[in-house]
Amino acid sequence: MSSLLDDLRAIVGEAHVLTGDGEALVAWERDWRKRYRGRALCVVLPGTADEVAAVVRRCAREDGVSIVTQGGNTGLVGGGVPDDSRTQVVLSTKRLRAIRRVDADNQTITVEAGLALQKVQAAAAEAGLLFPLSLAAEGTCTIGGNLATNAGGTQVLRFGNARELCLGLEVVTAQGELWSSLHGLRKDNTGYDLRDLFVGSEGTLGIITAATLRLFPQPRAGVTAWATCRTLAGAVALMRRLRDAFDAELVGYEAMNAASLALVERHFSALRVPLPLADASGQPLWSVLIDLASPHDEHVLRERAEATLMSAIEGGEAVDIAVTRNELQARTLWQLREAIPLAQGVEGLNIKHDVAVPLSSLAGFVAAADAALEAVVPGARHVTFGHLGDGNLHYNLQAAEGNEAASFLASHEDAANACVYDVVARFGGTFSAEHGIGRLRRPEMAARKPAPALAMMRAVKSALDPRGLLNPGVLLPD
Amino acid sequence: MSSLLDDLRAIVGEAHVLTGDGEALVAWERDWRKRYRGRALCVVLPGTADEVAAVVRRCAREDGVSIVTQGGNTGLVGGGVPDDSRTQVVLSTKRLRAIRRVDADNQTITVEAGLALQKVQAAAAEAGLLFPLSLAAEGTCTIGGNLATNAGGTQVLRFGNARELCLGLEVVTAQGELWSSLHGLRKDNTGYDLRDLFVGSEGTLGIITAATLRLFPQPRAGVTAWATCRTLAGAVALMRRLRDAFDAELVGYEAMNAASLALVERHFSALRVPLPLADASGQPLWSVLIDLASPHDEHVLRERAEATLMSAIEGGEAVDIAVTRNELQARTLWQLREAIPLAQGVEGLNIKHDVAVPLSSLAGFVAAADAALEAVVPGARHVTFGHLGDGNLHYNLQAAEGNEAASFLASHEDAANACVYDVVARFGGTFSAEHGIGRLRRPEMAARKPAPALAMMRAVKSALDPRGLLNPGVLLPD
Repeated sequence: MSSLLDDLRAIVGEAHVLTGDGEALVAWERDWRKRYRGRALCVVLPGTADEVAAVVRRCAREDGVSIVTQGGNTGLVGGGVPDDSRTQVVLSTKRLRAIRRVDADNQTITVEAGLALQKVQAAAAEAGLLFPLSLAAEGTCTIGGNLATNAGGTQVLRFGNARELCLGLEVVTAQGELWSSLHGLRKDNTGYDLRDLFVGSEGTLGIITAATLRLFPQPRAGVTAWATCRTLAGAVALMRRLRDAFDAELVGYEAMNAASLALVERHFSALRVPLPLADASGQPLWSVLIDLASPHDEHVLRERAEATLMSAIEGGEAVDIAVTRNELQARTLWQLREAIPLAQGVEGLNIKHDVAVPLSSLAGFVAAADAALEAVVPGARHVTFGHLGDGNLHYNLQAAEGNEAASFLASHEDAANACVYDVVARFGGTFSAEHGIGRLRRPEMAARKPAPALAMMRAVKSALDPRGLLNPGVLLPD
Repeated sequence: MSSLLDDLRAIVGEAHVLTGDGEALVAWERDWRKRYRGRALCVVLPGTADEVAAVVRRCAREDGVSIVTQGGNTGLVGGGVPDDSRTQVVLSTKRLRAIRRVDADNQTITVEAGLALQKVQAAAAEAGLLFPLSLAAEGTCTIGGNLATNAGGTQVLRFGNARELCLGLEVVTAQGELWSSLHGLRKDNTGYDLRDLFVGSEGTLGIITAATLRLFPQPRAGVTAWATCRTLAGAVALMRRLRDAFDAELVGYEAMNAASLALVERHFSALRVPLPLADASGQPLWSVLIDLASPHDEHVLRERAEATLMSAIEGGEAVDIAVTRNELQARTLWQLREAIPLAQGVEGLNIKHDVAVPLSSLAGFVAAADAALEAVVPGARHVTFGHLGDGNLHYNLQAAEGNEAASFLASHEDAANACVYDVVARFGGTFSAEHGIGRLRRPEMAARKPAPALAMMRAVKSALDPRGLLNPGVLLPD
């Protein structure tokens, strides 16, 4: 193996090939949720796309070696860490972080894959424009990882997932060739959509080294509001009322059940939920966070927001509302929403599901899943929240109050997953809305993805990466 | 062959397998622009997706037979008609025209592939919603064809191409298997994006039999305006001002040079251009058509539109403006725009280019292409118009006044194409923005598409259709 390491050092420079035993490489070998801990052959950090291509060509000549591409290592399904075979080269994109071009007239930005999402947002803002992809890990995650996993986040409702924000890619293929479509074109109908094939392929078809992304005007006005609803069906009806009233100005719509916010209140006492979590009779309420952004003047947006929310109370969808007066108040509401997964972590290990169903089935799905789970994991707490506007819920389970979390996870995870995904399937939903497959959801891929889809995916993988060089063990089942 | 025909009749019914010599099948054998005239083995019209699958399986067993899927036969690049070998079965989707479901809460509609685009729009409108794909052939073209070619049209600026409007597909694969993703989910990260691979594949990877499409709220207010600009750069600057002021409310932005509107005035005397085509000194002006749609009240939109356009005059981007007062006036402006290709047809055969470049390069591209062409086809008239908001121009050439059109086309088309596409490439553009490849643009695919992209496309084609059963001779070069 020393000759492979020597050759890699010759390509990227001595300092950019990392090796070592024990905990030396743990930052690259262990995933964010600490569910996977692999052992890498080495970590290599190329500084240019050409170096990436040379690394791929060199690894392709070495029998039994494969490549795991890693961005910020913030993925939630173990798709960016090596297995424990010591035969995998972790290719980190962290040194590919140039902003190649901001084209304000074309409303595009071209950046390298290893740039942190927050830096992409900042570069857009500096040009007076908006890059709307936004998620909790944005300070650490990279745009390359966002694209490789087709990341979602809090503004999908208006702007779409990472895929919809990407106009072109630069990719190193499994053959070590460089392919570029960094043209910044809104329309290009010249053959198959290779771009969207690489987006969401989790490093298994090619290595994204740069991307041209869409930018948008900065909104002139924003209004954030909080509302409570008696039922999830009410929250869906409120969403529909807002969508009809605001169309593209409805940017985000998050729902949270009372249990999820109660956890936040328990573990982050500085944060205060603006409206009661239960009605006068003690019945728990759903809370929703509404984000509106408009090119019109603030008073136009605000008056319409208040009027629409008032009619939602009259119409019975909402119990109570609170409209923020300024940016600081708005940020506080978002902190509440973002604190939920953190509060869950403090409370203890839990069983996470990232599911989506059609909006018209959302309330029915949660009712059916809650009932089905009570038979499988009696007493477990349902921490249900997420991007309701996209039909996407983080439908999580926490051990019953006072029960030990680790043993809860160990004894119930498989049964709970099977139960939830059965109900998801019954309501026409998906077992992975935005987190992807990685290593974690491969069993579900094998069991639940329709056979013709799996066959086509395998055929595509064999066609583009016949040697199985790129991220084997991820996304596709064996 | 009689046994193949018998078997096809057994699958779809006697009445739905058409054969015949001479002109009997000409409606299926000749393309819309009358550039291609093939000879089909037969035309088969399945009534269900299962029948489509059975037809595919039967044809796959017959050596030397292939399948050309056809929707409304309105394509502009010859991708939907058979060659003259008499070995191709034309599979018409025209009997697959059910509206399977309108889900207003989920804002989706599921329709079969052969339904006319206009009928999809109408079904959405009946549910109080909007399906925004809109193009000149909408009364005849089918949604299946729109998806197979990733159709564009007049509202791409706001809503995207057909691909961005599609949430899921039902497809018959080249193996005659039925694959469905008609789930209506906004988010689904479970493996490779097969949907976007079929969208735009021009019938070469599978046969789309149904689709679930996104719907939007009907706008509350609309304003259409006309403006003239001294230069194309001015029209681009005006576009940017409007985008900043209106964001998603800017739905359409079309530009037309003076020559294109002069042809409309010549051949459609009932239509009147609202603003002069030249300034006081006789200098020709560019005209732009602006479409705004808003969820806010009409007076909010109208006041802002008038104020923004007035500042565009003060800022020097626009020379003059005309804002419509009602829907009828707006429709008249759109008729002017839509009459351009018709007027070109009446004027005589012409050389068409459907190109796109980044908006920041648009004015530079047209100046360079005009100059380069003057050396290749001196005196030809430049009929330049299109979806400026998307960077997409129909950059067409008409014979010099009084010259014979057919011989103009015959003697200059190849040289003009090479010249235009060279300049397009220099400005980072594409030789097919929305019309696709079909048979017409295969030489450009061979000559101009980067080798790694072509290699990957061929690999994908071989992976999904190893026998070459589906639409050979289209999209990919030999």
